[in-house]
Amino acid sequence: MGDFWKMGSATKLLLLSITLHFLILISHAFAQSIIQISPHKIPNRKIRVDDDGLYCDSWRFSVETNDAGIWSYIPSRCVKFVQDYMTGDRYSSDSDVVSGFCLDFIKTFNVSSDGKDAWVFDIDETLLTNVPYYEAHGFGSEIFDEKSFDDWVDLAEAPALPASLNLYNELKQLGFKIFLLTGRSEFQRNATVKNLLFSGYSGWEKLILRSHLDQGKLATVYKSEKRLELVNEGYRIHGSSGDQWSDLQGFAVAERSFKLPNPMYYIA
Amino acid sequence: MGDFWKMGSATKLLLLSITLHFLILISHAFAQSIIQISPHKIPNRKIRVDDDGLYCDSWRFSVETNDAGIWSYIPSRCVKFVQDYMTGDRYSSDSDVVSGFCLDFIKTFNVSSDGKDAWVFDIDETLLTNVPYYEAHGFGSEIFDEKSFDDWVDLAEAPALPASLNLYNELKQLGFKIFLLTGRSEFQRNATVKNLLFSGYSGWEKLILRSHLDQGKLATVYKSEKRLELVNEGYRIHGSSGDQWSDLQGFAVAERSFKLPNPMYYIA
Repeated sequence: MGDFWKMGSATKLLLLSITLHFLILISHAFAQSIIQISPHKIPNRKIRVDDDGLYCDSWRFSVETNDAGIWSYIPSRCVKFVQDYMTGDRYSSDSDVVSGFCLDFIKTFNVSSDGKDAWVFDIDETLLTNVPYYEAHGFGSEIFDEKSFDDWVDLAEAPALPASLNLYNELKQLGFKIFLLTGRSEFQRNATVKNLLFSGYSGWEKLILRSHLDQGKLATVYKSEKRLELVNEGYRIHGSSGDQWSDLQGFAVAERSFKLPNPMYYIA
Repeated sequence: MGDFWKMGSATKLLLLSITLHFLILISHAFAQSIIQISPHKIPNRKIRVDDDGLYCDSWRFSVETNDAGIWSYIPSRCVKFVQDYMTGDRYSSDSDVVSGFCLDFIKTFNVSSDGKDAWVFDIDETLLTNVPYYEAHGFGSEIFDEKSFDDWVDLAEAPALPASLNLYNELKQLGFKIFLLTGRSEFQRNATVKNLLFSGYSGWEKLILRSHLDQGKLATVYKSEKRLELVNEGYRIHGSSGDQWSDLQGFAVAERSFKLPNPMYYIA
């Protein structure tokens, strides 16, 4: 190092300049290597096969298409996924797009003057959303507790699912007769009516709840029987909206059935 | 600058050292600022309400649940989304999870020795994947061109969908009778058999294609009629796998139906 100070000024400047350029180059190369790794790592984390997000999205596909069959609670690794889905933009976006397809459909025909054009709505997770309840109960990761859910129903504070409220009002304005067909029981009629009015619904033709004769029936059977009664009364059920396949399948099914999203629970 | 060379060696070294440290610090700060912006920008782009990704994912929900009804081609804003879905990890992950539910189901019962336990598979986008064809045809954004698709079928080069090949082999090993029920026509029998063998399938009980009597029938009707023939022959159809609802619905339906993903096209 002592030899450096014995060199001429021009040589010193040249050496100093080379050293500085070399150091700057190393720093930039180091920075570059981080920058290149960084964006590469982020998308990869989202699409890795063992990633919970990828698995849970696929689990949701199987649940929503009914491929999963009967299930009791969501996989523990998907609690955060379902929470993000229900409370973020995706749940409302999915519901909005389903409602959009309903609106496209109803705009294609004229409502008859005989008052027999009908639409059937389920209530929970269809007209009303129980997200405030499930937020306090692990978003479907806990076994369903009938007592605590009944207490929640009694509060009559479930908000409307905005996509459904919009569709409901469009149908009403077009002259459809609206039937509400729910798995809730007769003893919950008052709380249910109160909640529906509170959240903005009105003017339905009939609210059908489980009577003591319907207790213990599979939802598919109970709901099919009730739809058949409507058909026998001369109603043409053009559409049916529900978050469960048991709202839509069976017999006396609607001309078009619309499955709304619900990755939180399953009703057979 | 001339003054620098007049300083003592120790002072020169100190100044040089300070300058170098300062330069390294600046380089690191520059690198850091890029790194911090990068991961912040990527997730935010995915969750914006007006984002095509959010809309297209919701469109896919409506398509896969059959809420969308009849459709001819994918929305132009979703071409990139469908391409990413089909060629990335999501399509294979969704198919794998569906197959997992099939495997859970078949493990629950004993196959009878009477040889009448049956499973029905569709072919296109079920046993075989036509992604190489759709890659060259806009992933469903172009109107279906029968001529060019028939040319592709003649090549007999469609790969197996790995999730289905695995399920197929498990069913065969358990003693299920496997029926292949496709919308392809009789004139495509040789190419279809060649393709199935080429991609790893063998040992099916029967390959059913559209005869001239089946031309023009809705897929749901044609496939229901063929399933009914199997039922009338004494087969118990425990499961049915298909990417279209018309593979699964109608009459003589399977005990359990498994909807595989297909956001590229719709068959009524």
